[in-house]
Amino acid sequence: MAEESSLIKAGIVGATGYTGVELVRLLLAHPQVELAAVTSRSDAGQRLDQMFPNLRGHCDLVFAAPDVKQLGRCDVVFFATPHGVAHAMAAELLAAGPRIIDLSADFRLRDAELWAQWYQQPHGAPELLPKAVYGLPEIHRQQIATAELIAVPGCYPTAITLGFLPLLEQGLVDVDHLIADAKSGVSGAGRKASVGSLLCEAGENFKAYGVAGHRHLPEILQTLNQLAGQSTQLSFVPHLLPMIRGILATLYARLSDHSKDLQAIYEQRYAAEPFVDVMPAGSLPETRSVRGSNLCRIAVHRPLGGDTAVVLSAIDNLVKGASGQAVQNLNIMFGLPETMGLQSISGLP
Amino acid sequence: MAEESSLIKAGIVGATGYTGVELVRLLLAHPQVELAAVTSRSDAGQRLDQMFPNLRGHCDLVFAAPDVKQLGRCDVVFFATPHGVAHAMAAELLAAGPRIIDLSADFRLRDAELWAQWYQQPHGAPELLPKAVYGLPEIHRQQIATAELIAVPGCYPTAITLGFLPLLEQGLVDVDHLIADAKSGVSGAGRKASVGSLLCEAGENFKAYGVAGHRHLPEILQTLNQLAGQSTQLSFVPHLLPMIRGILATLYARLSDHSKDLQAIYEQRYAAEPFVDVMPAGSLPETRSVRGSNLCRIAVHRPLGGDTAVVLSAIDNLVKGASGQAVQNLNIMFGLPETMGLQSISGLP
Amino acid sequence: MAEESSLIKAGIVGATGYTGVELVRLLLAHPQVELAAVTSRSDAGQRLDQMFPNLRGHCDLVFAAPDVKQLGRCDVVFFATPHGVAHAMAAELLAAGPRIIDLSADFRLRDAELWAQWYQQPHGAPELLPKAVYGLPEIHRQQIATAELIAVPGCYPTAITLGFLPLLEQGLVDVDHLIADAKSGVSGAGRKASVGSLLCEAGENFKAYGVAGHRHLPEILQTLNQLAGQSTQLSFVPHLLPMIRGILATLYARLSDHSKDLQAIYEQRYAAEPFVDVMPAGSLPETRSVRGSNLCRIAVHRPLGGDTAVVLSAIDNLVKGASGQAVQNLNIMFGLPETMGLQSISGLP
Amino acid sequence: MAEESSLIKAGIVGATGYTGVELVRLLLAHPQVELAAVTSRSDAGQRLDQMFPNLRGHCDLVFAAPDVKQLGRCDVVFFATPHGVAHAMAAELLAAGPRIIDLSADFRLRDAELWAQWYQQPHGAPELLPKAVYGLPEIHRQQIATAELIAVPGCYPTAITLGFLPLLEQGLVDVDHLIADAKSGVSGAGRKASVGSLLCEAGENFKAYGVAGHRHLPEILQTLNQLAGQSTQLSFVPHLLPMIRGILATLYARLSDHSKDLQAIYEQRYAAEPFVDVMPAGSLPETRSVRGSNLCRIAVHRPLGGDTAVVLSAIDNLVKGASGQAVQNLNIMFGLPETMGLQSISGLP
Repeated sequence: MAEESSLIKAGIVGATGYTGVELVRLLLAHPQVELAAVTSRSDAGQRLDQMFPNLRGHCDLVFAAPDVKQLGRCDVVFFATPHGVAHAMAAELLAAGPRIIDLSADFRLRDAELWAQWYQQPHGAPELLPKAVYGLPEIHRQQIATAELIAVPGCYPTAITLGFLPLLEQGLVDVDHLIADAKSGVSGAGRKASVGSLLCEAGENFKAYGVAGHRHLPEILQTLNQLAGQSTQLSFVPHLLPMIRGILATLYARLSDHSKDLQAIYEQRYAAEPFVDVMPAGSLPETRSVRGSNLCRIAVHRPLGGDTAVVLSAIDNLVKGASGQAVQNLNIMFGLPETMGLQSISGLP
Repeated sequence: MAEESSLIKAGIVGATGYTGVELVRLLLAHPQVELAAVTSRSDAGQRLDQMFPNLRGHCDLVFAAPDVKQLGRCDVVFFATPHGVAHAMAAELLAAGPRIIDLSADFRLRDAELWAQWYQQPHGAPELLPKAVYGLPEIHRQQIATAELIAVPGCYPTAITLGFLPLLEQGLVDVDHLIADAKSGVSGAGRKASVGSLLCEAGENFKAYGVAGHRHLPEILQTLNQLAGQSTQLSFVPHLLPMIRGILATLYARLSDHSKDLQAIYEQRYAAEPFVDVMPAGSLPETRSVRGSNLCRIAVHRPLGGDTAVVLSAIDNLVKGASGQAVQNLNIMFGLPETMGLQSISGLP
Repeated sequence: MAEESSLIKAGIVGATGYTGVELVRLLLAHPQVELAAVTSRSDAGQRLDQMFPNLRGHCDLVFAAPDVKQLGRCDVVFFATPHGVAHAMAAELLAAGPRIIDLSADFRLRDAELWAQWYQQPHGAPELLPKAVYGLPEIHRQQIATAELIAVPGCYPTAITLGFLPLLEQGLVDVDHLIADAKSGVSGAGRKASVGSLLCEAGENFKAYGVAGHRHLPEILQTLNQLAGQSTQLSFVPHLLPMIRGILATLYARLSDHSKDLQAIYEQRYAAEPFVDVMPAGSLPETRSVRGSNLCRIAVHRPLGGDTAVVLSAIDNLVKGASGQAVQNLNIMFGLPETMGLQSISGLP
Repeated sequence: MAEESSLIKAGIVGATGYTGVELVRLLLAHPQVELAAVTSRSDAGQRLDQMFPNLRGHCDLVFAAPDVKQLGRCDVVFFATPHGVAHAMAAELLAAGPRIIDLSADFRLRDAELWAQWYQQPHGAPELLPKAVYGLPEIHRQQIATAELIAVPGCYPTAITLGFLPLLEQGLVDVDHLIADAKSGVSGAGRKASVGSLLCEAGENFKAYGVAGHRHLPEILQTLNQLAGQSTQLSFVPHLLPMIRGILATLYARLSDHSKDLQAIYEQRYAAEPFVDVMPAGSLPETRSVRGSNLCRIAVHRPLGGDTAVVLSAIDNLVKGASGQAVQNLNIMFGLPETMGLQSISGLP
């Protein structure tokens, strides 16, 4: 481990949720990071290991009230808050020095108006939107490397975007009728007490939700349009799985060009990507195979040789879908090996 | 309860699986049925309540070896066997008198060749195929009423067919690009010991399977083609849910006619159907709301007013997807109120 | 079904929790009961089937604000409220006519002081305590038959009491060192939004709680003392299971008399009890075998022929542990067959 | 990472089960170990990552048929086999050079006769029993350091022994009436296809098993007797939890000496133990807080200040209950820091 002086000082604002504790877990184990500050408005003074029993024996940190001065001494500050917090604090914090990696939706949409419509409040820092970089390394690695402000993608957007990406970049599908049928474990709904997330409501049960329009939709479309170089249309239906972690997105697209070797295209596009695993054609990625891991496992199918491509994209919604991706961004921003601190093997079973 | 002489004598062949015990449960509680014989090759001599602890106190039946003579004394015989058994016994049994309600796939496809391809064995009674009636009451009620041999539909086909039916009957969608993304609890895989169905393999996990081609596909297409009056093309992707019971099928179809009131069409089509519940537009049917029930709950969506119809169709795979539907067929065949013995309310939570 | 005029008019106060919806389900299916009123302070005006999707198609009831006048027209009123509500309304309601079956703890302890200590508020109707009957039919059937006010036992107390009963009545064990290690599904914690009951907190997890002293302890001791005819000492440790329904209590007691045939004693004591199933010696009752059922399944063991009796007692915490037992009490109070409306077979799997 | 020549060459016999894959995961990540050989009789030739999807991208190993010559080139060989395999191969393998760490029960009991009774076959290498060391570091660290043959303790024995240890060493309890009520996730039953381990049988269900006498009983008694310096009597009742990983043992013992500060005794006894975490008095250890971790978390209670001590002991049955403990033994045997490769933080949620 390097000398203390070269360790990256990190702070986390609003670490009382699931992406927060996952980020703590990853950063505590990161050889080049020193987790210096962890804040929470409501739980200041409480030890983290009181709230999160897995941390006991690994962490003596105590939640502090968010303080721009203290956070300002960090090299990087993560926001693991719900939307609406980062955009209020970002400008002041950036001025104090740290780079920001925001896990919330605050800086994901380039259009402040669109953001305001979907998140039902005015955008708190529209002037920062042009400098914010959408933190999907597989597309924006270059910009991430020099960014001051990263908007970590949402969980569904990560799985869906990585799944469609090669088809759209290569113009192989009808972009007007994309379908993303996505299924997520309940941790995606967060750690707040809500009836719908109770074990007695979500356990031994399955249902769709957000069919009329989910907040991740504009974010996904923004990226898909960019990849396709034109406007795309997506039917996105999320569903709630009776389990804790994992997202599988089953993507359907109508091939406009039947002659291409989809498998080769995916393998090629992602050959250099440490966190996208293109499985052999016809594979069936399981969410448990990436539990706790930053990998996105993808498999491409053309059922019965027809004209519909079916792509399966599996991630851990808290890791590649949030906190793991945030650390991947940190590694890029600070010139570290991109896989540092992100190489653990999923436990099985 | 009616006098013993007017009770319908029922027998079940191969009742050691989940559809079997579910059928036992339903028939024991059916006011007009006397469960007279329950057979199993491998477990003859064992009491049912030894194998199925829920039956203790409710049932003194013992598994008998399958015997056409004994079964021949029944008014109706159910086959709760895997495929390949009913077609071997059906002819002899029909000759002995009883009507047959087969929960297996043996008589679902009209084309014996097609059946042989998908089930990897020659069809054992092709001459019976013309008289076999596909037991989906919402379409075939008339034929069921006078049938001697019923092929109870598969679980996925039931949910998917009922979901698409009004759109296809009315010619409202592009039939070349139908999509059925279906998710089922593990009981659909049966009670046999197999590694993939272990709690440690299927629990806290999610994945697609059978993408290359699932046995239910030809069965679904047979009915969709019939409803559409033309050849249809379906992408059908099943998935395994980390729970015991339930299927939710999320169906996507491209509307060719945007002017129709889909909600009204569904409500009208199913108004007289006791076991199809068309929920208010935009509803989100949950599988737990039909657990143990013979209901299929459907909700129609047109996300963002686009040209894609999204239909959600929820059933209990063991009830409306198998044994409940079998009893519904029995009621029709024997002139009983169709809902008899099938009116229990799902437990919640 | 009997004529409307002979139907028992029932009301439920506070039916928005899990015992509430379970009671609705049981009463809707009860051939001699008409569910006339269902109240909720916070949700008045909402249809029950909006809150509880399993009721859709079975129930058109709407929550009303609690109104003693309206409730007063019922023959029986159930309280499915948390503690602290029934004791405030009981006196007035009894005066208006109905009998009361209270599922809360308000009238379970005979000692108002003791109640106040454990429930942290003064008892609201101590004058009613003498007339309140502890609704465990296996002990108090006679008193229940003529009672005006029933205190339905808690879930853990039901399983534990029925498990120990024959040993204590017969004076077969050392009463100073009884041990009840009990495990319950999460529905026992109720339907309120609380972090500990989230799927992400309680799922794939197991822990003890309430070790220092659980509110059910005084209630259990009250009955055990009564059965033993002396003061007993119990170590009671409850645990939270990662599932929805079910309680298994594993009871340990040191035999003072080794010569007795425990199996025969249990069988004899419960021979006439419709809802206690004494399984063959050495059996292993499973909670799923009583899911949705009012049965308590018990098995007695003497491991390695030693001097420790181990009794396993399984119930559904919402049924025999609450709402089923409430209906069993109603049947006794109104002179109906005790098993009426309580005979359904658990679904399996 | 040290030069290749100083890496410890490890082999695993029978790595197709859950303890096997867990061992692979731990050893692949161990900085001082090179996993050189992984064998399986039935699956020779198959890649590990074909059988275990979590290993894809982390491991190119292929199962080989067990070959004493090849295994003989290892420094240490682990047996992750069911009982009956290690004792057949151990002598020959030890002669070839490697040290052996056996995760099965073959060498846990010192008495070959007793072993034969419980495991229903003659012991295959009774002459090795005297040199076998029971691999519980908290008791046998010294002997482990110089051992050639380690018998890794069973999962239940680990949790139960560590929980009782300080009470027995200090003679604080009545040793004739110890009670261990233990609950385990289904992975304890292994990866073999068996109906009882199906999700549809073990999910949403709870039950006791092995009450008449579980194979872990003689092993536990052997150690408890050793700790107490006399014969002890234990009622041990295991139960099956509807989840994948974790054991919580709830231990009951009657205090003979009420004056002792149990908390201080436990803290003192385990102060130097890296993998036993004595939590503050009255804590409630959760199995999820040690998921994937080698920690055993313990909390001591004296409910209501009575004379019964209640000790809660939580482990991950596959880690501290098997493979993690195996690696802990390896570290001791090879003079490495005991915590090497065993310091990861459990994921939460």
